[in-house]
Amino acid sequence: MRPVDLIRNKRDGGEHTSAEIFALVEAYTRGDMPDYQMSAWLMAALLRGLSGVETAALTEAMLRSGQVMDLSALPGVKVDKHSTGGVGDKTSLILAPVVAAGGLLVPMISGRGLGHTGGTLDKLEAIPNFNVNLSPEEFRRVLKECGCSLIGQTVEIVPADKKMYALRDVTATVESPSLICASIMSKKIAEGIDALVLDVKTGSGAFMKPQEDAEHLARMMVETGERMGKRMVALITDMDQPLGRMVGNSLEVLECVEILRGEHRAMSEDLRELALELSAWMFYLGRRAPSVGEGRLLAEEMIASGKALAKFRDLIRLQRGDTGVLDQTSRLASAKLKSEFAAAAAGFITSIQCEQVGVACLMLGGGRNKKDDIIDPLVGLELHKKTGDAVAVGESIATIYHNDPAKLSEAHRLLSEAYRIGPKPVTEKRVLVKKVIGG
Amino acid sequence: MRPVDLIRNKRDGGEHTSAEIFALVEAYTRGDMPDYQMSAWLMAALLRGLSGVETAALTEAMLRSGQVMDLSALPGVKVDKHSTGGVGDKTSLILAPVVAAGGLLVPMISGRGLGHTGGTLDKLEAIPNFNVNLSPEEFRRVLKECGCSLIGQTVEIVPADKKMYALRDVTATVESPSLICASIMSKKIAEGIDALVLDVKTGSGAFMKPQEDAEHLARMMVETGERMGKRMVALITDMDQPLGRMVGNSLEVLECVEILRGEHRAMSEDLRELALELSAWMFYLGRRAPSVGEGRLLAEEMIASGKALAKFRDLIRLQRGDTGVLDQTSRLASAKLKSEFAAAAAGFITSIQCEQVGVACLMLGGGRNKKDDIIDPLVGLELHKKTGDAVAVGESIATIYHNDPAKLSEAHRLLSEAYRIGPKPVTEKRVLVKKVIGG
Repeated sequence: MRPVDLIRNKRDGGEHTSAEIFALVEAYTRGDMPDYQMSAWLMAALLRGLSGVETAALTEAMLRSGQVMDLSALPGVKVDKHSTGGVGDKTSLILAPVVAAGGLLVPMISGRGLGHTGGTLDKLEAIPNFNVNLSPEEFRRVLKECGCSLIGQTVEIVPADKKMYALRDVTATVESPSLICASIMSKKIAEGIDALVLDVKTGSGAFMKPQEDAEHLARMMVETGERMGKRMVALITDMDQPLGRMVGNSLEVLECVEILRGEHRAMSEDLRELALELSAWMFYLGRRAPSVGEGRLLAEEMIASGKALAKFRDLIRLQRGDTGVLDQTSRLASAKLKSEFAAAAAGFITSIQCEQVGVACLMLGGGRNKKDDIIDPLVGLELHKKTGDAVAVGESIATIYHNDPAKLSEAHRLLSEAYRIGPKPVTEKRVLVKKVIGG
Repeated sequence: MRPVDLIRNKRDGGEHTSAEIFALVEAYTRGDMPDYQMSAWLMAALLRGLSGVETAALTEAMLRSGQVMDLSALPGVKVDKHSTGGVGDKTSLILAPVVAAGGLLVPMISGRGLGHTGGTLDKLEAIPNFNVNLSPEEFRRVLKECGCSLIGQTVEIVPADKKMYALRDVTATVESPSLICASIMSKKIAEGIDALVLDVKTGSGAFMKPQEDAEHLARMMVETGERMGKRMVALITDMDQPLGRMVGNSLEVLECVEILRGEHRAMSEDLRELALELSAWMFYLGRRAPSVGEGRLLAEEMIASGKALAKFRDLIRLQRGDTGVLDQTSRLASAKLKSEFAAAAAGFITSIQCEQVGVACLMLGGGRNKKDDIIDPLVGLELHKKTGDAVAVGESIATIYHNDPAKLSEAHRLLSEAYRIGPKPVTEKRVLVKKVIGG
């Protein structure tokens, strides 16, 4: 079957066979199917949808377009976590050492920040000299030595996704649950994992804002992973306000170090809670704990005992970063200029347009509009208030760390838009984990 | 607005402004917008649809991508006809000289056959030495001297359509009424016409088979033309069986000459009837006749008086063709080998899968599967029976003219599939013009 016939079939609402999807991905990866045919197919797939079987076939075909990480020489269960992205979401830096300390292997291939969301690689690179570009051989060595390794995508892993994602980005074909699912799951399964915990965000700072959309994507990913023989769970979690106390790369590493040292502030409690919950599920799916509850106790113990912090130290050392940041957090530099974002009225913070907070950090230079933008790891926000908190007129809601006064007014404007202050306290209690799918 | 934002807007069912559509077409024609973005937009436009205003803007933007033929130096009303394509549809070769003889100008830019349908240019090139590749200057000169000229698309006319059509062909984005409308109407209006008669085919030999689809396209084209200040009418006409007696390029020219000479056979009556009806509408819209009825009388007179034949002679001479074919029709060669397609049963022809008849001619070498296929003008079919006709066992339904016995069995197979023979006479009378839209 020619590509044009497959495009026509999907356009008219037909269902592809797995063989057809494999042929499509293969032809595109090889360069035999041009971009203009793939983009027409992607748009038809986005508007007509892909079935569960088609999505699994696409995931598998993308996975097979490159190498699957061979971790068979490493004894132990391999577990990973993936988040759909949010603002202040830095759980990976906490849970990877926690879960490794608890005896599982965490082979984590991460991404960079794009748009209003941050990326794990950018955060790690805020640690002086930390190297996220390891060869598969180095990756395996670090994993063997300390139980976790965090790197960027290599050319060998899922080349079809690299090519397709670049095309989707410029043809408005990103926002399809099936295509998102195949892109994420192919990369995660290429890590050679046995189990995967998904953190699917919902709310004003998420890509999929309505909870039903997040749940739909979560179910699709769980089903796809299970079809491919992986143990899966998805947690639908709150992204209606930033997670934790810090937004911005270097500031976020500092916050993680505080948590691993057991010295965190109250504003970081939600972050710690979510990192522990995700770790608990990783222990449970990784069969290190007979229940999620016992997984949770194990995770707490890894922090309390200092074992997780020691693992983080190993990880930084093995990936050639400066471990001094763990002893002397002042070595995690932040921008020199500070400005307070103060409340314009007295009352209670009733809601936060969380995406705007992420964009404020991006505008300061802490994120990327385009893939090749250079980020400034030192800028960001230190938050002093969450939804429901009381504020007095002129009281600081957030401290803005910046390196360019010209960008400050835009950040202030975005934050004023983001924070709503009302006269009445918020009665609704925040639920961090809204739903568990699969598991 | 960036192309990706326009794609996203159309994907989500939004409506573009005319300025946005102009920017899109301009960027694509200039090469600033790559094929892969245009194909994603085309698929979104096909699946989401374009409004009447959007379709008119697209038509206008495509028109403005190139030159509009300047015919202002030629006094007189310029009228053209466009057909959506069928099998044995050769009315252009009759009506152009008829209408020119009646005092209007017919500046006709035609296409080539593709798939099961024939093309006017291929038919004209069956006349020895006939040149369809005139410069705009030569085109105007021929038009001035004899009132009609029939040529192929030049590079100056609607370059956006050339580029977009090639892309649509390989990305399954041809079958959108709005895109079809913009493609046809931009080319026709670029001819510098005042009025246009559309022959929109319906039935088993048409591209848009269901009558409601044909009507939808017809209404869209009529509205678009009227928005652009042209006098418009669309005739929805029957393509449930081949038009006239001949299918195949040289054979079809012969049939037209017979009609212009007033020497046609009964099997050509439907072709003559439709050519006269279309001519009548051209006379009416071109204000040469106060009513369609009087336009019809004028058209008949042009044939009866020999004036149309004389015009056809002028046209062939001015485009450097061999006018001898008009005096000695044997100079219109046909393939040497003949084979009879005979009825397998006695009874009545109850239906014809007309597209299959077109494909049979294509398979003999008389058409194109791909744009750069070379055609054999001499092959084709001479039909002896129409729907409703009685046949005896072994009686010839059609004579196959061919140059390659290897291709014959495929043609026989297609024809056997196409013709249904039943025991009862057909009571339903054929209606050639099923509906008139606009006018």
